[in-house]
Amino acid sequence: MRMVDLIEKKRNGDALSEEEIQFVIQGYTKDEIPDYQMSAMAMAIYFQDMNDKERADLTMAMVKSGDEIDLSAIEGMKVDKHSTGGVGDKTTIALAPLVASLGVPVAKMSGRGLGHTGGTLDKLESIPGFHIELTTEEFIQNVNKNKLAVIGQTGNLTPADKKLYGLRDVTGTVNSIPLIASSIMSKKLASGADGIVLDVKTGTGAFMKELSTSKDLAKAMVKIGTKLGRKTMAVISDMNQPLGLAVGNALEVKEAIDMLKGKGPEDLLELCLTLGSHMVVMAQKADSIEEARKALEHAISSGKALETLKVFIEAQGGDSSVVDDVTQFPEAPYKIEIKATSNGMVKSIEADRIGTAAMMLGAGRATKDDEILLDVGLILQKKIGEAVNEGDTIVTLHSRSEDVGDIEKIVQKAYVIANEHIEAPTLIYEEITASSGTGFAL
Amino acid sequence: MRMVDLIEKKRNGDALSEEEIQFVIQGYTKDEIPDYQMSAMAMAIYFQDMNDKERADLTMAMVKSGDEIDLSAIEGMKVDKHSTGGVGDKTTIALAPLVASLGVPVAKMSGRGLGHTGGTLDKLESIPGFHIELTTEEFIQNVNKNKLAVIGQTGNLTPADKKLYGLRDVTGTVNSIPLIASSIMSKKLASGADGIVLDVKTGTGAFMKELSTSKDLAKAMVKIGTKLGRKTMAVISDMNQPLGLAVGNALEVKEAIDMLKGKGPEDLLELCLTLGSHMVVMAQKADSIEEARKALEHAISSGKALETLKVFIEAQGGDSSVVDDVTQFPEAPYKIEIKATSNGMVKSIEADRIGTAAMMLGAGRATKDDEILLDVGLILQKKIGEAVNEGDTIVTLHSRSEDVGDIEKIVQKAYVIANEHIEAPTLIYEEITASSGTGFAL
Repeated sequence: MRMVDLIEKKRNGDALSEEEIQFVIQGYTKDEIPDYQMSAMAMAIYFQDMNDKERADLTMAMVKSGDEIDLSAIEGMKVDKHSTGGVGDKTTIALAPLVASLGVPVAKMSGRGLGHTGGTLDKLESIPGFHIELTTEEFIQNVNKNKLAVIGQTGNLTPADKKLYGLRDVTGTVNSIPLIASSIMSKKLASGADGIVLDVKTGTGAFMKELSTSKDLAKAMVKIGTKLGRKTMAVISDMNQPLGLAVGNALEVKEAIDMLKGKGPEDLLELCLTLGSHMVVMAQKADSIEEARKALEHAISSGKALETLKVFIEAQGGDSSVVDDVTQFPEAPYKIEIKATSNGMVKSIEADRIGTAAMMLGAGRATKDDEILLDVGLILQKKIGEAVNEGDTIVTLHSRSEDVGDIEKIVQKAYVIANEHIEAPTLIYEEITASSGTGFAL
Repeated sequence: MRMVDLIEKKRNGDALSEEEIQFVIQGYTKDEIPDYQMSAMAMAIYFQDMNDKERADLTMAMVKSGDEIDLSAIEGMKVDKHSTGGVGDKTTIALAPLVASLGVPVAKMSGRGLGHTGGTLDKLESIPGFHIELTTEEFIQNVNKNKLAVIGQTGNLTPADKKLYGLRDVTGTVNSIPLIASSIMSKKLASGADGIVLDVKTGTGAFMKELSTSKDLAKAMVKIGTKLGRKTMAVISDMNQPLGLAVGNALEVKEAIDMLKGKGPEDLLELCLTLGSHMVVMAQKADSIEEARKALEHAISSGKALETLKVFIEAQGGDSSVVDDVTQFPEAPYKIEIKATSNGMVKSIEADRIGTAAMMLGAGRATKDDEILLDVGLILQKKIGEAVNEGDTIVTLHSRSEDVGDIEKIVQKAYVIANEHIEAPTLIYEEITASSGTGFAL
């Protein structure tokens, strides 16, 4: 088999066989296939796409390129959640204890990553004493006992994906549904999930700006997961503005705690209930979505979800008293209010600009070795569809410095206030399941 | 400027500016742009094509990547001929002295190359004593005096093209009209031609198998040449069977000499008269194609063309007596006749298989360092549209060995003899000129 022949085959629009895809991925992982051939292949895939079988074969070849986590020692059906990412997305921190409180085992492997804020691990570390250094044994024991534990990525998972992602980033081949879908799904499969609930974001602040491409990506991932024997479904949710109100590390954890206390922002709660009810049904802890949703609502109102969070925090060395007394979280010295400069209704809040503002405050990292500030960030005081008067606070910055002129300018640019009636945007656009095939509108 | 942005621009179907194309080609030539980005760009160009301006800009950027030959010391309009290549293509050897005999200056820079037989240089070296080691001064003097001289490639011509061609060869991006056209035209322009007559082959034995793609390539090259201020035209000629009867090095030179004596195969003569008349008109040595053609026919019948060949051979150290006595050419020890195994008419002669047979006899090189045999090759005794009876000789092998069983099998496979009436194929399909725009059928 020669790589050049396989590039030409794909370039001509023909499907690659399982064996051919394995040859490509194994050869590339072992450096036997050079970058310049792989980038030509990626561009050919960009233009010619891959059929469902090829996408599943590519995903599996990437899973097989490295280690696979064995979670079989954990009792019950392990359901993982994955979000394609957005600004203010603290869903995991609220959702994990919420579903765990209903007996769904959540064995979460999480990352730090680059971005506007830290990853879930960074955010959790704003809880005094909390650490993620568990042995695999402790991790499994904790999940079996408390239904919830979080560790960093262990092992050499999907090295082919890591290498290919780096190459795609510099060769104009990031934006390809089969390549994105197989990248995400290979990581989820290698992490040992039995079931996967996907939160595919759509809108100006999402990786996928168009609803139609978000749907295509969701369908692609659901098909891959299903073909490879995992229960998989996807929710398409809004990212035309940040999720919830808080953007930052400690600020987002506090908002997640608020939600579990029943006083979180409505969109965050609704998203958690939607994703959570699918996770609960998938894990066979409820017979229907309606039943699951009621159980989740009860877990919040009864305090059961909050209790699960506390036990989880204690089990990983954290001080769970922060849950009741959030003043113990690190707090930035300056709170600076940014005011509306006109009357009207909030028409749009460009999530990317809000993310950039958080980044400039120090909440995120641009490169792997950047230090991250846990206390800083911002709180949105107005969201799309809310009325504002000139002089109203639209955003509160939590800053280490008083000198935030540049950041204020960016926040002002992010907000568009219009002199017309604006509806709050739809939060959940669609749910895609294996049986729905083409998905069904809500 | 960042290469990844330019890849995405082209990938999205937008045109690159002259400045952007220069950035790409300069950066790639200097190793500042890595192969993996260039191959992604080539694949994006494969799918999104380039407009006429981009193609001309790309050609010029490749010309500027290295040296350019200055032929201004040669009097008159220098017209070069280029063929996209095929089996049995000895056109240059007959055509160069033919047009030179009418006063058209032919300053030929030629290559050895890989293939079924050697390049023009190898073929000419089958003339005893002939050499191509001329200084640039001698080369120019010879052209001014005799209207014809041939040297090997000198200088660092179009290094960007050399590097890019090597990359395209292993990344499935060879078959792209803008990349092929700019590659050919950049070499012709860097070699200093004022006018260019292109012989674009079409058919089973050509690089371009389909007439429509051959026409696309011809039009692309004519447009590039014209846009860059060179008189350019193209002839689309048949390569559904080898050109002429001889395939080999000395065998082809002898056939070219035969043609200049008025006893060559009809298709070779017709192609030389067609290409030649355009070269003569382009060099302003005749006012019309008809006048040029008559002058060329007279150059053959009067012996003027043959005389020009002799003077050219002597000027480069060769023994011109071979022209009158072709038995002085190297001659293979074995002549082996291959016989028809059925009655009928020759329906097809797969040129590629004939080429492979020549290669196996030792006439060509597969890698740069292979030795080449000048005496071996084959003579087709029957061409498409000719009647054969079982037992008739269809091909005569000229071989160094009697053991040619494998080669005979390949030749038998190359010939299809059918029990039906077959017409000889068209030789010249179309002529493409700048003014004809879309070309005109003959």
